[in-house]
Amino acid sequence: MAITYEEALASVLPIVRTQEVHRVTLADAAGEILAMDVTADRNIPPFPRAAMDGYAVVWTGRETESAYRVIGTVNPGSTWHGDAADSDCIGIMTGAMVPPPFDAVIQVELSEADPGGGVRFTGPVKRRANIAEEGEDVRKGSLLIGGGTLLSPHHVATLSSVGQWEVPVYKRPSVAVLATGSELLEPWESAQGPMIRNSNSHFLLAALKGLGFTEVRYLGIVPDDREQIVSKIREGLDCDFLLLSGGVSVGDVDIVPDCLSACGVRKILHKVAVKPGKPIFAGESPGGGIVIGLPGNPVAVMVHFHMFIRPLLLKASGTAEYLPKPIHLPLASSATNKSGGKKFTIARLETHGGVTRVAEIPSHGSGDFVSAGRADGVFEIPLGTVELPAGHLVRFYPIWGNFLSKEG
Amino acid sequence: MAITYEEALASVLPIVRTQEVHRVTLADAAGEILAMDVTADRNIPPFPRAAMDGYAVVWTGRETESAYRVIGTVNPGSTWHGDAADSDCIGIMTGAMVPPPFDAVIQVELSEADPGGGVRFTGPVKRRANIAEEGEDVRKGSLLIGGGTLLSPHHVATLSSVGQWEVPVYKRPSVAVLATGSELLEPWESAQGPMIRNSNSHFLLAALKGLGFTEVRYLGIVPDDREQIVSKIREGLDCDFLLLSGGVSVGDVDIVPDCLSACGVRKILHKVAVKPGKPIFAGESPGGGIVIGLPGNPVAVMVHFHMFIRPLLLKASGTAEYLPKPIHLPLASSATNKSGGKKFTIARLETHGGVTRVAEIPSHGSGDFVSAGRADGVFEIPLGTVELPAGHLVRFYPIWGNFLSKEG
Repeated sequence: MAITYEEALASVLPIVRTQEVHRVTLADAAGEILAMDVTADRNIPPFPRAAMDGYAVVWTGRETESAYRVIGTVNPGSTWHGDAADSDCIGIMTGAMVPPPFDAVIQVELSEADPGGGVRFTGPVKRRANIAEEGEDVRKGSLLIGGGTLLSPHHVATLSSVGQWEVPVYKRPSVAVLATGSELLEPWESAQGPMIRNSNSHFLLAALKGLGFTEVRYLGIVPDDREQIVSKIREGLDCDFLLLSGGVSVGDVDIVPDCLSACGVRKILHKVAVKPGKPIFAGESPGGGIVIGLPGNPVAVMVHFHMFIRPLLLKASGTAEYLPKPIHLPLASSATNKSGGKKFTIARLETHGGVTRVAEIPSHGSGDFVSAGRADGVFEIPLGTVELPAGHLVRFYPIWGNFLSKEG
Repeated sequence: MAITYEEALASVLPIVRTQEVHRVTLADAAGEILAMDVTADRNIPPFPRAAMDGYAVVWTGRETESAYRVIGTVNPGSTWHGDAADSDCIGIMTGAMVPPPFDAVIQVELSEADPGGGVRFTGPVKRRANIAEEGEDVRKGSLLIGGGTLLSPHHVATLSSVGQWEVPVYKRPSVAVLATGSELLEPWESAQGPMIRNSNSHFLLAALKGLGFTEVRYLGIVPDDREQIVSKIREGLDCDFLLLSGGVSVGDVDIVPDCLSACGVRKILHKVAVKPGKPIFAGESPGGGIVIGLPGNPVAVMVHFHMFIRPLLLKASGTAEYLPKPIHLPLASSATNKSGGKKFTIARLETHGGVTRVAEIPSHGSGDFVSAGRADGVFEIPLGTVELPAGHLVRFYPIWGNFLSKEG
């Protein structure tokens, strides 16, 4: 009896362990996983900051009634000290510190030169107008980025602003990739007759690189031969993760689970009630490594790299959030699920008349991986649901989309 | 009079030129932009392929009536030749070539051993059942991936399958990054008084790296001093793109446009009817390079790296699609736009009760870049629209979301 996709993830995630921590500088931080909480070392803004170019005044509510004397100027990065009468102002630029006793900034658009050499204001302002107050965005000491955050460039901006130019991040696990199948040749070999080219390994290597994994070992192709498979598995078990494709079904040539067992790999699960990808195998090596056996069909490999393997790899890399998060969007047409399990269907997002819908990509099934090249991601039809009508809100996972368009 | 965001993009895109082409291997292809059309070198599948483990028979429609003799076996990667009577079958494994004269595959689940040594079938099948026909996914010679495609790992799978282990991709433009502002210090410096740390440049450097730009030159911080700015601009004009932050507003210290003019940069636009980011400057250097001056406020830099600069960088990198593609999603709460232009508002996607909505992130405005760290992207309120009600479908751009979750 196959377990559910959710049960499968829940049975492997608990044995996933994170690696050590090392330090990287800002230039290498994006894409890595922060290994500490980062707090604000100052208030943000760190001082009352002018939000407009103009004049700082001591607010009276009678700013439009008489001319002001301009007794100084303060630019970003500079300071001004002094006393000021009610009729005194200073020129101030956006980003500059508003010095005491001034407590309002009148934008330059509401000013005009006074014949007497000063300035007149043409509109009233409120007290503290156009001042971003010290600490109004962030108070000193407050949490800015939690440990376990997968750092994006906008987190790099935050790190920069609080002086965190070198931060601890988790080391990534090492990953080995192995393809099994006597029908496989490498892309640089000539393929004829019953032979096909290995695409799964090169997909996995590219996907791993894209996620920032650098310690990746490609073990090549091994034919459906017990001794050779066992030998390659032993090599792969040196890594924290071993990802195999092919040889996990029930057929006579599907000997990967047996070979894994011969290498001491403890089976956690074999077969998941999910389409594509039903024959998935997961196990734990004697050294505590994670072994995932994927079926040979390329769509299953593409889908489950994101839906099954990526959560494990991310957790092993220290992320606090590692499960794929769906966007609920309406189906463009009805969709069926005859699989008896959960179905992940490849789809594009299409927008017509201001409504974005999930459009299933016509495909000949799990062998038709070229169709996946046009997909933005997959949507889910739950286990036990045979048909969903057009317009139904489905869980769409944008796992492949780059969200680019020819038209704006 | 400020031009619209769309007019701004349309006025710069035509002068963007692509670079030369060089060849990369599969290991380096993902993230690059393909510089040729890739077609299928064979039919896919390249032969009639067994889609199930089972037995290949010569279809008669009477498969359940009598026992069959098993006269051979064919595995993936191997071939079988011979003659077969109507009562003969061969064992066949998923992925193997179905040899003539066989024209149907009966799955192993519909078979049982016959006491006479052969096999009996317990269910009927149709002619050509469980056979993926030669060329049913892709015909030899047909277009698989168009030139100008930003290659994802699933495109790497397609390239592998058709033997394209080394492909031409566009070289990326070189990019220089310069921050201006007398108030700026680097993250590794102690910031006190009116000084703040430079976050914009480190955001830009991280974002450029994430998009695969490797020829990136960081010119550091320059104070609001004409001579120093001009000197740094001259350095930056050696690159195909020069990205500046700060100094493009109307204030006395906003001297960047003047300095660019002094360096021979032709102004294309200055000020766009958009919030944040109104003071954006764009120009063309004497050598044909693109110069973009961003305001100093970090949210504007983050938004317009994706909404304004990324399209230019992608076009210069050869992509056929370079404009951000929105997903239309309902607003969680009403949203206002007092800017007089188009407004991009930072937001998160939130799902409750099976409905995903766009939730504006409360923020103190364009200085509050820490809020952007919690955003999945931005949504758009059109120019001329002052308020949108809750539930209204808005254009949401998922420019920052990693779509990860703690719960499944």
